[in-house]
Amino acid sequence: MAQRIEVNQKVLSENDRLAADIRSQLKARGISAFNLVSSPGSGKTSLLERTLQQLSGELNIALIAGDVHTENDANRLIRAGGARVRALETGGSCHLDARMISRVLPELDLDGVDILFIENVGNLVCPSGFDLGEDMKIVLLSTTEGDDKPLKYPAMFRRSSVLVINKTDLLGTSDFELSTVKRNARSINPYLKIFETSCRTGDGLSAWFGWLKSFVGKPVEPAPAV
Amino acid sequence: MAQRIEVNQKVLSENDRLAADIRSQLKARGISAFNLVSSPGSGKTSLLERTLQQLSGELNIALIAGDVHTENDANRLIRAGGARVRALETGGSCHLDARMISRVLPELDLDGVDILFIENVGNLVCPSGFDLGEDMKIVLLSTTEGDDKPLKYPAMFRRSSVLVINKTDLLGTSDFELSTVKRNARSINPYLKIFETSCRTGDGLSAWFGWLKSFVGKPVEPAPAV
Repeated sequence: MAQRIEVNQKVLSENDRLAADIRSQLKARGISAFNLVSSPGSGKTSLLERTLQQLSGELNIALIAGDVHTENDANRLIRAGGARVRALETGGSCHLDARMISRVLPELDLDGVDILFIENVGNLVCPSGFDLGEDMKIVLLSTTEGDDKPLKYPAMFRRSSVLVINKTDLLGTSDFELSTVKRNARSINPYLKIFETSCRTGDGLSAWFGWLKSFVGKPVEPAPAV
Repeated sequence: MAQRIEVNQKVLSENDRLAADIRSQLKARGISAFNLVSSPGSGKTSLLERTLQQLSGELNIALIAGDVHTENDANRLIRAGGARVRALETGGSCHLDARMISRVLPELDLDGVDILFIENVGNLVCPSGFDLGEDMKIVLLSTTEGDDKPLKYPAMFRRSSVLVINKTDLLGTSDFELSTVKRNARSINPYLKIFETSCRTGDGLSAWFGWLKSFVGKPVEPAPAV
């Protein structure tokens, strides 16, 4: 297996080089970039739909919607009012990488853009290992998935700066406890900023929108290393 | 990247060789083996808990519970009455492979076992590519994850023989439609056997239990190739 590890390390350092290029490009334009990661079905697309509907009058938002197959998410986001939405089908790959972002970024009109969202493939493991040139990873976890997930998938919670606990309207339909998931998440990463949202009812979204608006015109502060 | 592909092919063929060994061992003992795959939080452990509680008096069940980190699932399953439960922590890997199974199988007492369940890592992408020596992959999908998932993660649905649609008690709390998910799943794999269950209320579990009992004393029939 040594040969495989060596080759993978080469691929990863190539990824880091490309990610650094992307980060410089975005910084030069004053764009804040967020990489949204989660299990399938946690609500990444719903959160982005709500965000486009609410903020596209105030902020210039661009969006890359990654999926293993289909352009369903991108189509939903275009319908939600995203003029600058680009689908990115990975064709089987379990995560986005910096090479894929480098390829599609020139096709997006970035003039005047405030925020770039990258919606990763639904997978709580593999996307944690790939820098896409983002300022922050934002991990979503829905209340139907179980409050032990931060302990079972620690890399993703360690490498994210923000946790969005979504589907709070379904609290009480399972054993999921908000206090437990927050304790578990902070035991992995004490610096996590946490939002509690329901994209269905709208609860908690105003805090999320307010936080996003705070980035316009000023750079993202580097997150503390864990 | 050619070098990487070549190395991965070598790793995969090594996996297939080990999986064939495992399959022969299990066949020689008359054991049916099922590899449970799904997103994190779809209910694999809950389904297995219910199954152990209901069937451990009638069937001899052995179980390997895979997780990236923690032995939480294995501990839940031991509490549910599983004398022959083995935890398998992957230490970061996004899927189980045949080498991991080969390593832990000798530690399980397989004398008189009817069914071996292997609970894979919660990941709807990567585990689809790894044969563990099972007779069938069984994919779970919960009603809170969205009815388009078979189209977005087709490899997993193509390579599974059974689909368990879990959390039917939460139907109506989202746009998820049973008829849509079944149509989408069968468009990928027309041979899928489908169960609809709620591990919370117990709805639909008797059909699942009956199906499992049908394997005792007779080998699993090969599933049609898609």
